[in-house]
Amino acid sequence: MPGTDILFVWDFLSTAVADAWPAADRLRWVHVASAGVDRLLFPELRDSDVVLTNSRGVFEESIAEYVLGLVIAFAKDLVGTVDAQRERRWHHRETERVVGRTALVVGSGPIGRAIARMLRAVGLRVAGVGRAARDGDPDFGTVYPFGSLTDRLPHADFVIAVAPLTEQTEGMFNATTLATMKPSARLINVGRGAHVVTDDLVRALEGGVIAGAALDVFEEEPLPASSPLWSMPNVLVSPHMSGDFVGWLPALAELFVDNFHRWRSGRPLRNVVDKKLGYVPTGAAAWTGATEEGATHAG
Amino acid sequence: MPGTDILFVWDFLSTAVADAWPAADRLRWVHVASAGVDRLLFPELRDSDVVLTNSRGVFEESIAEYVLGLVIAFAKDLVGTVDAQRERRWHHRETERVVGRTALVVGSGPIGRAIARMLRAVGLRVAGVGRAARDGDPDFGTVYPFGSLTDRLPHADFVIAVAPLTEQTEGMFNATTLATMKPSARLINVGRGAHVVTDDLVRALEGGVIAGAALDVFEEEPLPASSPLWSMPNVLVSPHMSGDFVGWLPALAELFVDNFHRWRSGRPLRNVVDKKLGYVPTGAAAWTGATEEGATHAG
Repeated sequence: MPGTDILFVWDFLSTAVADAWPAADRLRWVHVASAGVDRLLFPELRDSDVVLTNSRGVFEESIAEYVLGLVIAFAKDLVGTVDAQRERRWHHRETERVVGRTALVVGSGPIGRAIARMLRAVGLRVAGVGRAARDGDPDFGTVYPFGSLTDRLPHADFVIAVAPLTEQTEGMFNATTLATMKPSARLINVGRGAHVVTDDLVRALEGGVIAGAALDVFEEEPLPASSPLWSMPNVLVSPHMSGDFVGWLPALAELFVDNFHRWRSGRPLRNVVDKKLGYVPTGAAAWTGATEEGATHAG
Repeated sequence: MPGTDILFVWDFLSTAVADAWPAADRLRWVHVASAGVDRLLFPELRDSDVVLTNSRGVFEESIAEYVLGLVIAFAKDLVGTVDAQRERRWHHRETERVVGRTALVVGSGPIGRAIARMLRAVGLRVAGVGRAARDGDPDFGTVYPFGSLTDRLPHADFVIAVAPLTEQTEGMFNATTLATMKPSARLINVGRGAHVVTDDLVRALEGGVIAGAALDVFEEEPLPASSPLWSMPNVLVSPHMSGDFVGWLPALAELFVDNFHRWRSGRPLRNVVDKKLGYVPTGAAAWTGATEEGATHAG
């Protein structure tokens, strides 16, 4: 850290920056190779003048595809099909329709928006929950405020957690909120593990409070081998990979290089995080693929 | 059979109608609870005056959802995720994008059309292969003639077989045609098992000629436990269920009852199969949900 002006953080789940903070004697800019910045919003950085940028623009569509795949996998019991195949067992079942089912996307940023757009494209009924409530959104339809989460959960067949991790969203899926969901509903978490109180979720799944969960993120990653989640029949565990398409690393590097050129030439950076909100506000200049075009082109 | 005017065939894979044909002394109409009518096109029925109707209109969207789920499952290696989970193994991988990939839908009837529409809706590039070649189709874009199948196969990341089983389509995926596909391509068969020469497919998969296959239909069903397909790492076996959503049986009965009322009142039947073609021609009056509306409303 000593003498460093700019820090590029690959490991977005590491606490190394917080740990090394006392040695940061001239740090001016931290860029992180992820959308979520929760590990970087420790008080010293948050309250400093150091600029924080993230990797908004890289993961949106890939995560949306992944979530759609999980929705259909639940509806068509794809996991049951794989398990039956491993036993060479021909086990015909009736499966659920996807068109016309209801999805609630909790988190109305760019990733939530891409998810909403894709689910809507195939015929799901979609609503959002986010900070800025509104009607008539082309992708979400209606975005409800976070405060009305428990009012909206009873209507959803699929609930997708993709919000930034903030004080408001930490633990938002707990015994109380899970109890308001349909017994037939599935929870899909592609946001942060701490959105969900894991013990409450395990109990809700065991008790039939909800029907299933697909979890790509966990309170502790890698998920410990001792976790009951691995062996629950109605849980799909994936290793924090929903956004990580072939080519994600070059794309992340390209984004940083583009921003670095901006820094060097004194132009405004893209993807500047509002450290109070905990994410890049809608309307802020966002990365939309590497380009030397003017910073006034907001994504 | 003796004395029977109307036959409603639930088991569309049975040869019972052919076997019992000599006893059909006054049969006038056979309705089958499936889209495919291949088992009913034995020469005696085909050459008779007996009307054959099918269940077009019931399965389209459900199969399209299923196929989209398989496409994403391949791209995101969902099967690998399930297998890793069963071993409590955290195994991060990069996965493929779906948007922008190319799909070739072989079979341009209503099920193929629903598949094309859904794949296109999420951003795949789609083309079709079918009997009536055309450009500018809203769902397929271009439909190429069956004769140019091997010209189109090299362009496709996902090849979906959903044609009626006819002399023209039987065995259309064999060593010769599979060899024209991309080594990275996947074959999805939701049509009939006999579209594929199984031994050729097994060899192609073992030899890396293509990358994977998802098979919902087989030359012999149920797939025998001795089949090598069950244990191939790049094969997803499902038990002929792609269209069988919760409610399919009432929907099939409702379709027959609607047609039965038409028969009784002397109105034209819906879903009349052209026994020479082997399917209901596009433009023929099709079932679009139970209704007593006039038969002139073609679907």
